[in-house]
Amino acid sequence: MSINANDSTYQQLIMLPGPTNVPIEVTQAMVAPSIGHRTATFSSMMKEMIRKGKILFECQEDIIHLSASGTAAVEASITNILRKDDKALVTVCGEFGGRVSEQIASVGANPIELVADYGDFPSLSDFERALENNPDAKAAYIVTNETSSGAMCHWLKEAGDLTSKHGAFLVADAVSNWGADKMPLEDYNIDFIATGSQKACAAPPGLAMIALSKRYKEQMMNDPQKLHFLNLPRFIKMSDKVKQTPFTPCLPVYFALNKAYDIMIEEGMENRYIRHQICGKAFYDAFEAMGLQLFGAPETRSNTVISIAYPDGIDDKEFRGSLAKNYGVVVAGGFGEMMGKIFRVGSLGMINSYYVLTTISSIANNMNRLGFKANTDAAIDAALKNLSKL
Amino acid sequence: MSINANDSTYQQLIMLPGPTNVPIEVTQAMVAPSIGHRTATFSSMMKEMIRKGKILFECQEDIIHLSASGTAAVEASITNILRKDDKALVTVCGEFGGRVSEQIASVGANPIELVADYGDFPSLSDFERALENNPDAKAAYIVTNETSSGAMCHWLKEAGDLTSKHGAFLVADAVSNWGADKMPLEDYNIDFIATGSQKACAAPPGLAMIALSKRYKEQMMNDPQKLHFLNLPRFIKMSDKVKQTPFTPCLPVYFALNKAYDIMIEEGMENRYIRHQICGKAFYDAFEAMGLQLFGAPETRSNTVISIAYPDGIDDKEFRGSLAKNYGVVVAGGFGEMMGKIFRVGSLGMINSYYVLTTISSIANNMNRLGFKANTDAAIDAALKNLSKL
Repeated sequence: MSINANDSTYQQLIMLPGPTNVPIEVTQAMVAPSIGHRTATFSSMMKEMIRKGKILFECQEDIIHLSASGTAAVEASITNILRKDDKALVTVCGEFGGRVSEQIASVGANPIELVADYGDFPSLSDFERALENNPDAKAAYIVTNETSSGAMCHWLKEAGDLTSKHGAFLVADAVSNWGADKMPLEDYNIDFIATGSQKACAAPPGLAMIALSKRYKEQMMNDPQKLHFLNLPRFIKMSDKVKQTPFTPCLPVYFALNKAYDIMIEEGMENRYIRHQICGKAFYDAFEAMGLQLFGAPETRSNTVISIAYPDGIDDKEFRGSLAKNYGVVVAGGFGEMMGKIFRVGSLGMINSYYVLTTISSIANNMNRLGFKANTDAAIDAALKNLSKL
Repeated sequence: MSINANDSTYQQLIMLPGPTNVPIEVTQAMVAPSIGHRTATFSSMMKEMIRKGKILFECQEDIIHLSASGTAAVEASITNILRKDDKALVTVCGEFGGRVSEQIASVGANPIELVADYGDFPSLSDFERALENNPDAKAAYIVTNETSSGAMCHWLKEAGDLTSKHGAFLVADAVSNWGADKMPLEDYNIDFIATGSQKACAAPPGLAMIALSKRYKEQMMNDPQKLHFLNLPRFIKMSDKVKQTPFTPCLPVYFALNKAYDIMIEEGMENRYIRHQICGKAFYDAFEAMGLQLFGAPETRSNTVISIAYPDGIDDKEFRGSLAKNYGVVVAGGFGEMMGKIFRVGSLGMINSYYVLTTISSIANNMNRLGFKANTDAAIDAALKNLSKL
């Protein structure tokens, strides 16, 4: 099977928690002549991207663009400050929290896990208690949106107040919801935000973005990690000197993300947060009206990853396969123990009425075809009621 | 300054040791609809890329495509097998050899450096002696083409014979010359080849390719590294299971590299090696005929990175700046202590007569403009004599 630009078979609606649908002008930005990454041309672009990034992340320190996945950015948040026997809190309520905990342990540090059930999220009081019980914790890692379950942290600002009071660093693994949910770095006292180009930015995958506080930066510059690739002090020094990267950057995605940043700035972050809230709510209300069971605790629901329990008798592979094949709508399955039990709809990036309604009607129709009696009209009505606020 | 596809200011001839000029069909391949990387569509593409990669690298084990730079691939070659107090030989005759040595030391292993002057390359007998003096060396790292100076290893096959005799792993940091110079993994007894998409493959930057031997694979599967992002056993397990990657892949560059692989297979690797040799020789002969001094020892000269000493009175910044601005030809300067003393021309990827002749005539003309008397006609004649063999 070949995949190329002219093969329209593959034009589908990608309703995943990343990668998302990418606007054509962002994709087209990659069709640019080669440039050298040790040239003034690259430096000019990087300067612009840093300028835009600082507006979007609401921070003072320069944004770091890492040519790698979100996992690399999260790993960098760990390897650059945690050392052997350091203690770090971490929220664990799904696959990605589990990974952060493993990464913390990988550098010889001790993860103190704040565990919640899959579909739920640890509470602010759990977090506060853990900080009090571990006054020597160097950092707290919060997976702000647990992509594997669709549970999000609703107390990030309060967490920042607490960690700064305790003198700990607050690291936000915000891979799947930065740009969709509010988290101004400075105002919320966050020390590190990690995210990826293919999530709420609606650019193609390939770049991870890192925003950090002055205090996090100073800590890691004073005690730099040894390995090269995720060595953020090297990125900072090179950027300060010539606005270039120490290692070869993924140029096409730089071109794309630079354009995606423009679109974000034009819309405005506040508008973006509202749009994501409205579309997320439209999905939840529609799925309930359709007669499906939402997965996860109502009070911890994500705006960007909508998890739905499969009704009895609906097979994951068959449902998602036919949804993609017949309707051209691609949604995600469950992770690990949730595999086959839930499906997940990404509601981020360029999410809008068209995407929401097409997805809902396709899912309702496909459910009916597979034997579940879905109330399509009620679902569309429930969605429209929310979407009218856009 | 904005950079976009319609800004023809930036259409230049990129004569760098990577990134290189990218064929338009490879660039266009990135203009594809979003796909999910946890879908059969992605698996099909990855399967195809692995199949093609195995032909190109001449190896049995599946190729690993790492969404990161060459530095990451080289670091993976180290973190996945070297452990504290292990000994590893490493060729050091420039910036990149120095980096590998540092990376070896970063994991607590001991680099045994085989040092040569900048512009020269350690000899096979040095290598053999070092192996004999260090019978407990776990691996030997050869930077097959020292991009910073333009010196290449001409005894890679012999190195493979020696390391396999000594029971050590042979790792080729071949970032800037794999695909241009012959190095069949199996036939040469190489255990690990690391390279990047933006080098001799002539694709955009963003992906690193790793080919490995069965024995290297077994070693690292039996004693996996702890961190996630460069954890190759995770890549292998995921690939074996579903032909997917453990972390988000840089999709646009996958599309591009998949197309670039087709072009490589169509040309044939042997033809590619010959073309690189001829074009490299054309450059060397032309620069000498022009009256310039080549940098580095004649017997260690690279086919892909042509280093030339600046004549007295020619300023690096002025020369390269005006070459780019007036002629649209971008070449590289020197690294570290060589900065301002040499310039480097990349002769790789789609390198052909047009690229060689345009570069030579532009450089000769610019040298004349800046006060050095370059013999343009003799240079072109010398180049043509070689290029007629293409």
